[in-house]
Amino acid sequence: MKVAIIFGSKSDINQMQGAAELLKKFNVEYKAYILSAHRVPEELSKKIQEIENEGYECIIAGAGLAAHLPGVISSQTILPVIGVPIDAGLNGLDSLLSIVQMPKQIPVATVGINNSFNAGMLSIQILSLKYPELKEKLIKYRKDMKAQFIKENSEGVEF
Amino acid sequence: MKVAIIFGSKSDINQMQGAAELLKKFNVEYKAYILSAHRVPEELSKKIQEIENEGYECIIAGAGLAAHLPGVISSQTILPVIGVPIDAGLNGLDSLLSIVQMPKQIPVATVGINNSFNAGMLSIQILSLKYPELKEKLIKYRKDMKAQFIKENSEGVEF
Amino acid sequence: MKVAIIFGSKSDINQMQGAAELLKKFNVEYKAYILSAHRVPEELSKKIQEIENEGYECIIAGAGLAAHLPGVISSQTILPVIGVPIDAGLNGLDSLLSIVQMPKQIPVATVGINNSFNAGMLSIQILSLKYPELKEKLIKYRKDMKAQFIKENSEGVEF
Amino acid sequence: MKVAIIFGSKSDINQMQGAAELLKKFNVEYKAYILSAHRVPEELSKKIQEIENEGYECIIAGAGLAAHLPGVISSQTILPVIGVPIDAGLNGLDSLLSIVQMPKQIPVATVGINNSFNAGMLSIQILSLKYPELKEKLIKYRKDMKAQFIKENSEGVEF
Amino acid sequence: MKVAIIFGSKSDINQMQGAAELLKKFNVEYKAYILSAHRVPEELSKKIQEIENEGYECIIAGAGLAAHLPGVISSQTILPVIGVPIDAGLNGLDSLLSIVQMPKQIPVATVGINNSFNAGMLSIQILSLKYPELKEKLIKYRKDMKAQFIKENSEGVEF
Amino acid sequence: MKVAIIFGSKSDINQMQGAAELLKKFNVEYKAYILSAHRVPEELSKKIQEIENEGYECIIAGAGLAAHLPGVISSQTILPVIGVPIDAGLNGLDSLLSIVQMPKQIPVATVGINNSFNAGMLSIQILSLKYPELKEKLIKYRKDMKAQFIKENSEGVEF
Amino acid sequence: MKVAIIFGSKSDINQMQGAAELLKKFNVEYKAYILSAHRVPEELSKKIQEIENEGYECIIAGAGLAAHLPGVISSQTILPVIGVPIDAGLNGLDSLLSIVQMPKQIPVATVGINNSFNAGMLSIQILSLKYPELKEKLIKYRKDMKAQFIKENSEGVEF
Amino acid sequence: MKVAIIFGSKSDINQMQGAAELLKKFNVEYKAYILSAHRVPEELSKKIQEIENEGYECIIAGAGLAAHLPGVISSQTILPVIGVPIDAGLNGLDSLLSIVQMPKQIPVATVGINNSFNAGMLSIQILSLKYPELKEKLIKYRKDMKAQFIKENSEGVEF
Repeated sequence: MKVAIIFGSKSDINQMQGAAELLKKFNVEYKAYILSAHRVPEELSKKIQEIENEGYECIIAGAGLAAHLPGVISSQTILPVIGVPIDAGLNGLDSLLSIVQMPKQIPVATVGINNSFNAGMLSIQILSLKYPELKEKLIKYRKDMKAQFIKENSEGVEF
Repeated sequence: MKVAIIFGSKSDINQMQGAAELLKKFNVEYKAYILSAHRVPEELSKKIQEIENEGYECIIAGAGLAAHLPGVISSQTILPVIGVPIDAGLNGLDSLLSIVQMPKQIPVATVGINNSFNAGMLSIQILSLKYPELKEKLIKYRKDMKAQFIKENSEGVEF
Repeated sequence: MKVAIIFGSKSDINQMQGAAELLKKFNVEYKAYILSAHRVPEELSKKIQEIENEGYECIIAGAGLAAHLPGVISSQTILPVIGVPIDAGLNGLDSLLSIVQMPKQIPVATVGINNSFNAGMLSIQILSLKYPELKEKLIKYRKDMKAQFIKENSEGVEF
Repeated sequence: MKVAIIFGSKSDINQMQGAAELLKKFNVEYKAYILSAHRVPEELSKKIQEIENEGYECIIAGAGLAAHLPGVISSQTILPVIGVPIDAGLNGLDSLLSIVQMPKQIPVATVGINNSFNAGMLSIQILSLKYPELKEKLIKYRKDMKAQFIKENSEGVEF
Repeated sequence: MKVAIIFGSKSDINQMQGAAELLKKFNVEYKAYILSAHRVPEELSKKIQEIENEGYECIIAGAGLAAHLPGVISSQTILPVIGVPIDAGLNGLDSLLSIVQMPKQIPVATVGINNSFNAGMLSIQILSLKYPELKEKLIKYRKDMKAQFIKENSEGVEF
Repeated sequence: MKVAIIFGSKSDINQMQGAAELLKKFNVEYKAYILSAHRVPEELSKKIQEIENEGYECIIAGAGLAAHLPGVISSQTILPVIGVPIDAGLNGLDSLLSIVQMPKQIPVATVGINNSFNAGMLSIQILSLKYPELKEKLIKYRKDMKAQFIKENSEGVEF
Repeated sequence: MKVAIIFGSKSDINQMQGAAELLKKFNVEYKAYILSAHRVPEELSKKIQEIENEGYECIIAGAGLAAHLPGVISSQTILPVIGVPIDAGLNGLDSLLSIVQMPKQIPVATVGINNSFNAGMLSIQILSLKYPELKEKLIKYRKDMKAQFIKENSEGVEF
Repeated sequence: MKVAIIFGSKSDINQMQGAAELLKKFNVEYKAYILSAHRVPEELSKKIQEIENEGYECIIAGAGLAAHLPGVISSQTILPVIGVPIDAGLNGLDSLLSIVQMPKQIPVATVGINNSFNAGMLSIQILSLKYPELKEKLIKYRKDMKAQFIKENSEGVEF
């Protein structure tokens, strides 16, 4: 069970942390790389190949502005690619559209703006189809999440 | 290998056809249901349960306007849910935002507006992680796609 | 005369306070709950049932991002549901569209972004149709509001 | 049980028809007026007064472009005003924002773009709080709606 | 030579100051009023009548959100009305559209978001058609403005 | 009483017709020119000078896309310039923003998208400040407009 | 003097024709290729290399939706890349943002939506810096363009 | 090798610095001027003429709001004009559209919002076509940039 995380700049670390932390919590192995579709395209291609060869099963890619990284990765692998639009101007609308509006045949599974946590969650849901022990953890996580939500909020709100 | 397709109205059939046709092409079993998160919430919940019990491994959900269907499904299953924003006003921007901007913990893997073909493709990529024979087909499909693209466009363009 | 207020997270309390304070001012009984359409859908359904059974006559629901909460509530009750789009990114345009663009048959009475005060006011206008004493108060409130506005601003402005 | 429908131009009749037809179906008396906040402000004020005096309990107002009509009506009555943004350019985004973003104290209960059907439905939900026989009809309508939806869509979809 | 300035709330004073200061600079008499189209519609109507009677020749109106004030004023006078969209959410796009997209026959002369300075300037340009001494000042102002711009920026820029 | 109309291309004639027809109706002399800020800047400058010299008192300028024409004209005259955003893509949002968001000191009096009728009306309101006979006509026009509106719509609407 | 034109699909031919026709008119040699950054990334890379080797000096790239093609080309060459956003949904706003919002170091010279004519013109302006005979033609073209504009529009407009 | 930088106000210096610094780094001579298309149109025209006469080969122009400067410059020169949209409200969407959506025949090579660095880079790419020594530097810069990126990011990321 291995997930690769790729993003284009050190300045995106905070926005991508949510994915990493969730994967840790689920004991899913991950590696994170800073690679740019525009600055180091060959290195990116090599890394994608390496990622496939090393048996990673899902790639989470975060990018801002004209966010080509997730789509470029998707064009070079058959692994599911999860795209995280990062807000770096225009409230993230530019990166959202640059990631989600992919042409036919090369999809990117897009999550919400700056929401790498959900990218991590989606990768776990995908891997759970194959790994029963992860599925167990996921079911438990969901139950705990509900229980915690109910506990925290059971008393209503006082204004 | 089974994928469920759910959408909210007969008027969405044309936009959802791309997913179905691709699944057929890959011999992935699918069933398509018209169910609404708002009109028949209980039936939707039952169907989601049924879908899980029958061993479906991925759900494709299409919706327009305030497109809650994919998110509501995602909240009731641990299966990966792929959301297709359907343009029913505002060029589909309303459905895109209603689908992709899900809160933490409950992701929807969103594809482009009206692009159910890519939802089908993404479901195949996800299932390929588990089913080697599907992975073979997918690799071949990608190769054929490239070959066809090259063949069709090899001669350049005359204006 | 009872109004229920529901929203999805403790982080929304500030934005929802306006509704609560206005209801207090009018001596309309209210209860506020934190419940999520995505995290605790069954608890939400139960609470909606309970709210109906206890004779609440209006539900105010606030949510951000892909703001499904008001629409999901509306699909499970015949009570009027007032939706408050909360700005949690994209200036609240995402939550506005996710709340207001409901499909035929299941409306949400949407007010302005972060404007829970107006949700409170709308609930009072609705209840005033049935409760003459509330109508009296509302007429007086409007008169006082006008008088206060005139008093505060009667002298024009000096720059 | 009486609902007033007001809109600004004969060209909006098609978009407002949904409200009228639903009210007819529920045997709720209604009258429809063409009145403009900008062209005949005094006549509008008189009509609002008349509407209040004649015992109407809800006003549905539709408008396009810089859609001031619903807000102007709301400022002159304590009746709940339901606003229908009509698309007359910019896909209706201009009318939506002009209607929904009302200042504190003077709300408009806004429904989706061109969705006067939902305005009608919301008015019925509001009146149902006071009129038990209407509530009965509404509960039956919802049941029938569900039954019809299930019947129409029970066999799944063939592509 | 008299210009009236109207806006809806004390919180808009800063954004409206630019108009007042420019009018002062040109020795054009002005009065500024806080009046709301929604909260005190009758007082607004009276003031518009008064403004006309007292010989004001131009009205500058600033408003935010669903900014109806300039349009409502325009519907009650034949004086030119200059609208200033004030940013009070959505970056001022809501107020811009609510002011500029007026229906046929009732225009508002709209200037840029928060740009009351230009509203003042436009009022001076309009009055200059009638008042030769103001025209002289305006021509001089433009010349001085150019001269100052050139003086301030004649040396190019050092980074 | 003379108004100049300038726009950038023969393809804009239909959108600009409303202004011309209204001016005719009011017997206000006008001339219309096709001139482009980008293609013939010198000719535009000469024409602006000519327009000033011939005693025109208002300029209506229509443009689409990156609609610089009204602003460029305004920078070269002290006459009031009324800008008409023409929809030539992006629903006219690009032309609206290119016209209305002028920098301090050089305003354009912007009307709604494709709404040259209102540009004509605004020019008449401006000229009415100076020409009493035009003011009389304008007052009569408004009265007739109201009377006609009331007559046409007095019987309510039948759906 | 050679310009390469690249776009992603036969369906874009009409939108790209403007560039080709202008280049023909100026006797600038060009070749047009259909190549996709997502479907045939390796072939695209080879072609870019080939284009550089064959002495092309400018690349015009057109794309729609999540329009990565121009940016991906720019990342693999030091030639100036001119991007043409093609409207394939969302009025072309998605392709515009996907092309223009490139990260630091890898620019795309973006022109207007569907405006490949201007991409052709920009390539001619760039090449004119180096080729005096092209510069002559360009100066003549601009003069002719002006003369033709003036001739066509010299008589003003009759409505 | 000379590049001119023009922008409209001292307040834009920070946003334009990136271009200047890159040009310095490449030893490309540049001069920067503050000139406004609206405030000093004649001076701008003279400066453009001067720039052409002095052998500048590229003009970088930055502007905010209704950003006419780059287009107005482009209409008066055959030199390539690179436009930098500066965010001065509406997140820079207004300036982007005002710059990029130029009419046929008069292009502006537009880069990303506030991204003058890329304007500088684009000017270097353009000049490199003509100046082999600059081309060498550019090739080296790209190599160094890649090497630095790889070095900085070779160790992956620790969260």
